[in-house]
Amino acid sequence: MPNPTAAMLVIGDEILSGRTRDANMHHLAGQLTERGIDLKEVRVVSDDESAIVAAVRALSDSYDHVFTSGGIGPTHDDITADCVAKAFDTAIDVREDARALLVKHYDRSGIELNAARLRMARIPERAHLIDNPVSAAPGFSLRNVHVMAGVPAIFQAMVASVLPTLTGGAPLISETLRIERGEGDIAGPLGALATTYPDLSFGSYPFQKDGVFGANVVIRGTDAGLVAAALRALSAEFGM
Amino acid sequence: MPNPTAAMLVIGDEILSGRTRDANMHHLAGQLTERGIDLKEVRVVSDDESAIVAAVRALSDSYDHVFTSGGIGPTHDDITADCVAKAFDTAIDVREDARALLVKHYDRSGIELNAARLRMARIPERAHLIDNPVSAAPGFSLRNVHVMAGVPAIFQAMVASVLPTLTGGAPLISETLRIERGEGDIAGPLGALATTYPDLSFGSYPFQKDGVFGANVVIRGTDAGLVAAALRALSAEFGM
Repeated sequence: MPNPTAAMLVIGDEILSGRTRDANMHHLAGQLTERGIDLKEVRVVSDDESAIVAAVRALSDSYDHVFTSGGIGPTHDDITADCVAKAFDTAIDVREDARALLVKHYDRSGIELNAARLRMARIPERAHLIDNPVSAAPGFSLRNVHVMAGVPAIFQAMVASVLPTLTGGAPLISETLRIERGEGDIAGPLGALATTYPDLSFGSYPFQKDGVFGANVVIRGTDAGLVAAALRALSAEFGM
Repeated sequence: MPNPTAAMLVIGDEILSGRTRDANMHHLAGQLTERGIDLKEVRVVSDDESAIVAAVRALSDSYDHVFTSGGIGPTHDDITADCVAKAFDTAIDVREDARALLVKHYDRSGIELNAARLRMARIPERAHLIDNPVSAAPGFSLRNVHVMAGVPAIFQAMVASVLPTLTGGAPLISETLRIERGEGDIAGPLGALATTYPDLSFGSYPFQKDGVFGANVVIRGTDAGLVAAALRALSAEFGM
């Protein structure tokens, strides 16, 4: 059975303007690979309602799971929750279960739960809350879309909350062989190997450092025996 | 007149599997912002023909410029050039101008220009070559799509070759105010300011470090006078 598929939607002008370097994509990619869920696509869009709604609908239709990051804070540019609700024609309002989490958190810290902060309790009907152990304001899952914060520490905590609830596939196994030859010399044998092992994927990632050049060849698959066999064949090919 | 718009398409299984952290998005975003071209969307897709062709078509239709990174090397998984040709129903083959660049480069370095390396001279008809001062194998521009290498040093050199040929808009000016207050306290005044200055964009990026928390509020726009006025208003609001 093929692994479940996933897409990620990163929401934030600050990444598209070059102000901030996204860190969440790399984290999620690694976590999904470990769990046997194949990340097939990532999109980054700006804090724009029509862009977010269109991307949520397109990705939700195409993949088993969609993970979003960003746009669920208290300021006027945080519109992700409303956009996800709109994408699914679902009602959204301050929900009592989410409000209770915020009341408890802000009571303890002596900070006023004002109207802006209360926006973080806006959750679509029927969505499941995602625990936020860092700053209380929850994420949520609606249908196959998992809506999480953009702040990396919170995003990572939410990913850790959600992933155990999803059915994974066979984890992807990968082996890397460092070959100090030009990619143009590696290409022929590698292409032949890819034909011999159609169930594996072969990637070649060139490097050039301190006068040494070559490529890291990565062999990926879910069958450890096949991956090992292909690695041996490749090593033999280059006398390693 | 509004600024030209752009999208980026990152091609590479290695990023989606979490093996490699993309560095090109952040670089391109900063360069485009300086040049007054608005990066509106980024997509990351795997080394898969139908995914690449569909993304090239969709982004090329929606934005003034599309910049791709990755998949133009000599190995079997480098299929970007062929996919871009297919997206525009354009013929592609080894082109003499591109072959000449490779012959010169490999003659000088004493490396054989074998069949795999020659694949890097496959360029669609009517495409303009993009100079590669690092390793000779060129990128190309076909219609509004600029096809570049994934290796960061080469990607950056190609961006530097292409950007001066494009018409930019007014560079985006941004000012950041660090406010050591909870985002929930900043949200109200910030929302009001966003209403007062509809031509500017206001983003709030929370931080929490060493027990100090607050947010960096970023004001962006193309009119320096307006940005400065909004910054003064925001500073006054928080007694700064």
